[in-house]
Amino acid sequence: MNKKGLAILMRTRMRPTDSTKLTLSPLTNEVNQMAQNSQPNRSSPRVSQFQGNKNLNASSNTEREFELVRESMHSAISMNKTEVLDSVLNDFSEGYSSLDHENRQRLLLLLAKEYDLNRAQVRELIKQYLGLEVPSGLGENAESSTGVEDEALLSAFYRIERNLRHALKPVYEVLFERLNTHPGGLKVLTVLRADILSILAEENIASLRALDSYLKEKLGTWLSPAALELHQITWDDPASLLEKIVAYEAVHPISNLIDLKRRLGVGRRCFGYLHPAIPGEPLIFIEVALLKDVAQSIQEVLWDDPPIPECEATCALFYSISSTQPGLSGINLGKFLIKRVITLVKREMTHISKFATLSPIPGFMQWLLSKLASQSKLAEAEYVSLSSVDSSGSAFWENILEPEEEKALMDLSEGVATGKNGMEVMLNLLNSANYEWTNSSELLSALRSPLIRLCARYLLQEKKRGKALDSVANFHLQNGAMVERINWMADRSEKGLRQSGGLMVNYVYRLENIEEYAQSYFSKGHINASADLHRLVKLKEQGERTD
Amino acid sequence: MNKKGLAILMRTRMRPTDSTKLTLSPLTNEVNQMAQNSQPNRSSPRVSQFQGNKNLNASSNTEREFELVRESMHSAISMNKTEVLDSVLNDFSEGYSSLDHENRQRLLLLLAKEYDLNRAQVRELIKQYLGLEVPSGLGENAESSTGVEDEALLSAFYRIERNLRHALKPVYEVLFERLNTHPGGLKVLTVLRADILSILAEENIASLRALDSYLKEKLGTWLSPAALELHQITWDDPASLLEKIVAYEAVHPISNLIDLKRRLGVGRRCFGYLHPAIPGEPLIFIEVALLKDVAQSIQEVLWDDPPIPECEATCALFYSISSTQPGLSGINLGKFLIKRVITLVKREMTHISKFATLSPIPGFMQWLLSKLASQSKLAEAEYVSLSSVDSSGSAFWENILEPEEEKALMDLSEGVATGKNGMEVMLNLLNSANYEWTNSSELLSALRSPLIRLCARYLLQEKKRGKALDSVANFHLQNGAMVERINWMADRSEKGLRQSGGLMVNYVYRLENIEEYAQSYFSKGHINASADLHRLVKLKEQGERTD
Repeated sequence: MNKKGLAILMRTRMRPTDSTKLTLSPLTNEVNQMAQNSQPNRSSPRVSQFQGNKNLNASSNTEREFELVRESMHSAISMNKTEVLDSVLNDFSEGYSSLDHENRQRLLLLLAKEYDLNRAQVRELIKQYLGLEVPSGLGENAESSTGVEDEALLSAFYRIERNLRHALKPVYEVLFERLNTHPGGLKVLTVLRADILSILAEENIASLRALDSYLKEKLGTWLSPAALELHQITWDDPASLLEKIVAYEAVHPISNLIDLKRRLGVGRRCFGYLHPAIPGEPLIFIEVALLKDVAQSIQEVLWDDPPIPECEATCALFYSISSTQPGLSGINLGKFLIKRVITLVKREMTHISKFATLSPIPGFMQWLLSKLASQSKLAEAEYVSLSSVDSSGSAFWENILEPEEEKALMDLSEGVATGKNGMEVMLNLLNSANYEWTNSSELLSALRSPLIRLCARYLLQEKKRGKALDSVANFHLQNGAMVERINWMADRSEKGLRQSGGLMVNYVYRLENIEEYAQSYFSKGHINASADLHRLVKLKEQGERTD
Repeated sequence: MNKKGLAILMRTRMRPTDSTKLTLSPLTNEVNQMAQNSQPNRSSPRVSQFQGNKNLNASSNTEREFELVRESMHSAISMNKTEVLDSVLNDFSEGYSSLDHENRQRLLLLLAKEYDLNRAQVRELIKQYLGLEVPSGLGENAESSTGVEDEALLSAFYRIERNLRHALKPVYEVLFERLNTHPGGLKVLTVLRADILSILAEENIASLRALDSYLKEKLGTWLSPAALELHQITWDDPASLLEKIVAYEAVHPISNLIDLKRRLGVGRRCFGYLHPAIPGEPLIFIEVALLKDVAQSIQEVLWDDPPIPECEATCALFYSISSTQPGLSGINLGKFLIKRVITLVKREMTHISKFATLSPIPGFMQWLLSKLASQSKLAEAEYVSLSSVDSSGSAFWENILEPEEEKALMDLSEGVATGKNGMEVMLNLLNSANYEWTNSSELLSALRSPLIRLCARYLLQEKKRGKALDSVANFHLQNGAMVERINWMADRSEKGLRQSGGLMVNYVYRLENIEEYAQSYFSKGHINASADLHRLVKLKEQGERTD
């Protein structure tokens, strides 16, 4: 290939739509974005392409293919352990990847239902189990009984309990176990799970949910974080690996290999977690920028040329963490990642002393808009029914704005903003088409204070089951970070405005506090934050108390 | 360190007794020898050293240590999932490795008994389960029922079945699972299992056997062969890795690092299977010699200087396979190893066309001596009771010798060999002190024919559960090898004479047949062998038919 051809190739967009190179990939390219709660893209190009093909082919052809895959699946499950399985497992893996969306769904449902557990056997074993005599002092955790007779009786318990435990495993576990020990099989399992998840997103089917829960449990135990290898990704890595980075970067999309080259060049680092059973494809990767100081906007970070020589850098900024396997959703692979990267960078560059992130706040706007909508509606209702000036009498209603914020929003010039109260004005502004509010200095200045303050509240106080509501916040807090600073207009991209109102947050990792912070977050749900952020949150609390 | 000091260090024997450098190792250095059915060495130096220490320490001190380990174990199991476990797991791992034999045993028994499953909970869930109404057509693998009501009913089944499955897991599974995801934890688990096995070898305790069976199952699923990495071990590898090779070489012991250097030098290769969670320690390794032709004796292979330049080699001879982890006994890690090594060698050296082994026959003498003893006794009994010349009338009795072999043995000069029949003479000769028979050309020539022929019978016809009785034969046959040739006086070492009467066997791997042979061995127990070997076995069969 000549130089020009190569240049064109390098500039070609390599986003997920170009999935022909990924020989085995889930049908819907629903990238598992740690940073986003995005909805699966159900009308992905790949699916429609498949549907197109199907119409061209005779449907009997497809049916025959389906039957072949079904047969190989059956063989893979029912063959005797001692027979040679490798070719059967290969047949199944290849066959499955060639199936279209509809037939994958058929096959997975069939797997979930027809290879479920053997309930007759379970009942038989239960009968045997209930027939056993309980040895003396063997209720739960017997401490005293160690007699020889008890040991003999225990043997019977152990045997039937073991059999019952095995009988309670669905028959499809055999397929999972065999694929796990087969080269390339773990990858097939992640694709199966990605497909199951995308079907479940459309329809909640109990047997498929059971299949998913079982497979998730298995994948979790097979993909031990202790077995993951930290690998520094560089421009010297194979293109087949690099294209995965381009395809899966979920936070700040990379448009082509040229773009990627900058992210691997001077002043940047990229590290990936690789599992030996899924070679050449990092399961999760993290991008680092070496900077003079903790960056306040993503524009500074993604700037083409590094502003300073590496030796002058004092801060390593983690600006993007992406996982590549939609099928591993819900399985914590990031454990140790940050800590190991920090250790590595520190060893290589002793002049780096600050470790921080510049992170999106993916759930912020969703939370804020629904809060504004419900509260401004409540405010109206209260106003109509009670005509009460002191609406704080209602347990449900809360003006989430400070008095001066309310005033600033209500004082905005006519026509620009409408609403019966500050919250409704804010809601309408934030919902305006094309984020018009970002083009007016008047609107920006009225929104700045409430957006930053409410973002602090969202990050520090909004929780779900004792953990931070925001998924990225939860990730960093459980790794032992603290919330340092909220940055105004830090990401003006469409996605940045839609998800976080343009805000970004710096989480800071201090090596001396990582363990302590992680522990207090885990055990008490305590969120460590800078004095500035605490002040923002307390302002409102004090205001309420003096009301 | 000066040159002389280094030279002395290099010559120091580094066999298992020097286990101070292996920070975490099972107490008894019972090397898991694939090639041997050796009995665990219960009086290993390590144990006695520990017992010595114990006597020096105040026993209250030991007791306090034990209590600390017990506490960390309890925390590791009972702590909430969301708490930080890392330090607790480290405490447990370090504490456990510092315990002596007796206290490890106490702790493991305690783990097996006090962290067993919660039987009250199991009974409660069983009650709930039996109370569920079986949906229509949901006996075993329901195919027809797909109604919405059935899906709802199924949900209840799935839920309780899942709970029951979890309740049937012993409480100690938590410790295993947590260690598995903890850096270094998998190594700790293999040490735990090695210790359990060594206790079970002394005493069969039901609860401990249940613990072992559960841990073995877990280790088997975590150590997928697909996750193992093939690594060529060279003199450039860290000494900490190389010393493991010296310590664990089970077939042809290596006396020191100098000796090892030869095995990694010109004309030799060494490959290891590494697991990312147990870094720097191959779980299994294989040694290869590059030769002009398939070697007939181990002396040729272990010869100091390679007889030919590498480029003239046409044969890659696998002369030693050892596994390093006694705690992984019974878990097949060798899968794919041979095939992957062949592929690697073939790619590097296209002039190599033969792939063979020179293997011990570890079970041969044990089988032969017990056969000779029982048959010669039977022969005597038959002779006394029936005085029958045609003793073949008995279903139990069989003269395993050919007439001319019988004659040659009975014709031996007086005083050298005694016995009422050929088998007794052979038994007495083979049992003679210091293998005296190997020093007499008369005895060697009388024993040669029956030993080789009976070895062929042992390898090709003696089976256990449809598989070759000999463990090394079984390993290579299931990998797709064929039995090529039996070599006379191929290993004159004490071990070689004791285990295999000095015989060694060549298994040959032909790439074009590997799959087919493995399959026919797996499915039908068919053992592929050369025409020469078949002839040796058929000789006797024909002899019997014409009797």
